[in-house]
Amino acid sequence: MFLKKLAKAASIQCGLQQDVPILVGVSGGADSLALLFGLEALGYPLVIAHVDHALRSESRAEADFVQNIATLQGWSFFSQRIDVGEFAQNERLSIEEAAREVRYRFLFEQARQHRCQAVAVGHHADDQVETVLMHLLRGAALSGLRGMPFRRLMPQWDAHIPLVRPLLGFWRVEIEAYVNSLSLTPCVDLSNLDTTFYRNRLRQELIPELETYNPRLKAVIWRMADVLNEEANWMDQLSLQGYQECLRKEAKDWIEIKLSHFLQQPTALQRRVLRHAIEKLQPDLRDIGFDAINRGLNFAYGANSGDQIDLIARLNLVVVGDVLIVKTWSAELPDFDLPLLTEPAYHATLDIGRHVKLRHGWRLEAEILEEISAELLENVKNIPTDEAWLDYDRVTMPVMVRGSAAGERFQPLGMGGHSQSLQDLFVNQKVPAHLRPFWPLVVSEGQIAWVVGLRPSEGFKISEKTQRIVKIKLIKSDQ
Amino acid sequence: MFLKKLAKAASIQCGLQQDVPILVGVSGGADSLALLFGLEALGYPLVIAHVDHALRSESRAEADFVQNIATLQGWSFFSQRIDVGEFAQNERLSIEEAAREVRYRFLFEQARQHRCQAVAVGHHADDQVETVLMHLLRGAALSGLRGMPFRRLMPQWDAHIPLVRPLLGFWRVEIEAYVNSLSLTPCVDLSNLDTTFYRNRLRQELIPELETYNPRLKAVIWRMADVLNEEANWMDQLSLQGYQECLRKEAKDWIEIKLSHFLQQPTALQRRVLRHAIEKLQPDLRDIGFDAINRGLNFAYGANSGDQIDLIARLNLVVVGDVLIVKTWSAELPDFDLPLLTEPAYHATLDIGRHVKLRHGWRLEAEILEEISAELLENVKNIPTDEAWLDYDRVTMPVMVRGSAAGERFQPLGMGGHSQSLQDLFVNQKVPAHLRPFWPLVVSEGQIAWVVGLRPSEGFKISEKTQRIVKIKLIKSDQ
Repeated sequence: MFLKKLAKAASIQCGLQQDVPILVGVSGGADSLALLFGLEALGYPLVIAHVDHALRSESRAEADFVQNIATLQGWSFFSQRIDVGEFAQNERLSIEEAAREVRYRFLFEQARQHRCQAVAVGHHADDQVETVLMHLLRGAALSGLRGMPFRRLMPQWDAHIPLVRPLLGFWRVEIEAYVNSLSLTPCVDLSNLDTTFYRNRLRQELIPELETYNPRLKAVIWRMADVLNEEANWMDQLSLQGYQECLRKEAKDWIEIKLSHFLQQPTALQRRVLRHAIEKLQPDLRDIGFDAINRGLNFAYGANSGDQIDLIARLNLVVVGDVLIVKTWSAELPDFDLPLLTEPAYHATLDIGRHVKLRHGWRLEAEILEEISAELLENVKNIPTDEAWLDYDRVTMPVMVRGSAAGERFQPLGMGGHSQSLQDLFVNQKVPAHLRPFWPLVVSEGQIAWVVGLRPSEGFKISEKTQRIVKIKLIKSDQ
Repeated sequence: MFLKKLAKAASIQCGLQQDVPILVGVSGGADSLALLFGLEALGYPLVIAHVDHALRSESRAEADFVQNIATLQGWSFFSQRIDVGEFAQNERLSIEEAAREVRYRFLFEQARQHRCQAVAVGHHADDQVETVLMHLLRGAALSGLRGMPFRRLMPQWDAHIPLVRPLLGFWRVEIEAYVNSLSLTPCVDLSNLDTTFYRNRLRQELIPELETYNPRLKAVIWRMADVLNEEANWMDQLSLQGYQECLRKEAKDWIEIKLSHFLQQPTALQRRVLRHAIEKLQPDLRDIGFDAINRGLNFAYGANSGDQIDLIARLNLVVVGDVLIVKTWSAELPDFDLPLLTEPAYHATLDIGRHVKLRHGWRLEAEILEEISAELLENVKNIPTDEAWLDYDRVTMPVMVRGSAAGERFQPLGMGGHSQSLQDLFVNQKVPAHLRPFWPLVVSEGQIAWVVGLRPSEGFKISEKTQRIVKIKLIKSDQ
């Protein structure tokens, strides 16, 4: 019965193959012994690993106990003794976290070295129920209520070798019965290091109490986790898809999301997209709270272009135009591949037949149009925004290309000589605030002739009297 | 503070409009009074309804209390006294279910009558936490853990008027503080009828116990429900879409699902599609257990064509070819619009120039081809499956159209006169077992000339000596 159920769990739920070794993490307790002898009986090739956390006086004896079993059975055995207490102090982790860290690090190292298909550990159904209840009490949502899975890739340990839990569907009593039937004597009280006071109290007081409300409580919680796990898998798959659809661009330290598309998604997906972005930028972050996510969503709904908040873990959330940006504190805001000056203080001269380089392969080029036909003058009304036509007799070549000064004003074409502050122009044209200092101006003897790409000036405009035209053009090359 | 938060809950979470009346269900307890005076203060037009469940001696006094408040304030007031005990007995419901049933029935009746936009009730955050924990202890999955929503259509009460819960985000203490600030004295211990022993114990013992594990337990559970509700909404939307994509055909008492498409979906979606199909066929069913769904899924994966199981609540699950059918016990299996006899015992004669009617507008027609050209004979090899060409000199007209008898055999064309049982032919041709008795045969003097649509017989085949041909053809009309 035990073996038949284990065979199904191993092959179907854990996806294990018969002919590739499995690394089994063995503490010496009943769970890991049942796992070990069960998988052996099913004919899986095994490699045994034991981690001595050096936290209790009997830990050396336990390591010897596991080694003896391995030797007797002729199994490959590898072990490591690590001072978890010291590691915890150095890494500023709790003992529990530190033990987990060193344990899995060693198990996956060994799995890689011995070309194992998976790392198998002895978590069982009672562990599952306790885990789910702990997550519930701590306030986890679906990601916590789904409990532990039979099989999962843990990218922090290995990108390809999964962690499997073939005993996840077995209750403690089933496991102990199997171990007894083999006449094995497991190490007593080899409680793994998760078995803290909190978990013990939950096991010995809370669960029995909850069972007075529903005698089938454990079965019911286990099944809930199982169903929620399937639902969570489905949503994970859909969220990844949704994330890709919301994504504009991503890099190591920033992610750009298409804001208006994002705002049309269901709230649950929005939460998951934001969460996923945070995880990508801060993969080591273990808990992303509801509050951060909710604050992020509220911000996305209410923000104006240029607004910015602290999100979580040294990440900002910024709205620029129709883009929602999640970025590390140190990451620059995106410049959207615009034709900007490389730095605010940049100065250069631009003469006929020459060019000035801007960011992202953009450049400004100047040429002269000598023959002014009626047809050409007709075109003056339809000059594209990436060109400026200036009256050669009004402009002094070479012109200057530079950024704007605080409070600088100019006379926009078509406003009858009235002047406007550049600030107002930038606001009207929705130029993100952080990019304004980099915005290039074409200046002739201190007078702005063209706010590049946005607006030429009244003072240099073409008239019927114009003899020659200076044409300045924005050009994008792939350089 | 109270009103500001209520205004947001009413307009945003509950989607209430300012200018259409709201029907408020008022028991006389603090919750419903807070709801009533709060909505009034926000300027919503209100209609008050009270249900006297006649379960306790003080219930008349409570009805009077609410009526007095309504009169004093000049609100429209409607009440009903119903003997819930009697109703429960007649309908075989628990007292709690019966009270709920009569209460909501009356509230929605009144809402329709007074053209209200919604029925508002006083469930608050503590109720939410208790509800979620009760569902958890009973073993609900997402549908239970999501708790009660701020706004939901309850099709069993009304197809258009939603039930709203504007106080869902308020804790009991906030509500009592507001009621005190108005110098209102609510009815004491107007516990609504859900407040059974079970719920009381949960409130007074279990929740305080859980708070020793996490002092913020209630907030944490409330928020979990809120997040899960969004996730569940999203999945509901996706499941409906998934259901439509899996759907082949549906009717009042059966639903056909495209089996191979269904089997490719994520498990979570499969579960939901099956659940949705059950809900459509048995809308009154309140609890659909995990076990039924899992049994259904396992069956879908393992079943052969013709297999059938009892699913739940007088529903069967049947596989026929590539179709998974959920049906009531009494519903016939689908006949896929095939050209079948109307009943197994059907007999008819078919003569030249006449026809015999079959199901779904199909008919068999016989005609005679007199001029046999070489070209025509060449076509004999390519006769479509909906026609049979018989040698007029071998067949005796009129032929008989009838169903098959048990064990009947015939000589299929092209098998050199060897005979085959009809049973084997049907199996090879994947004719669903339940349709075989209805399958039409064309029979000449006791000999099968054509198993309609499947195979003609060797005994009547066209040869070079054939003078005239009887052509029998399956024709579909829209009659």
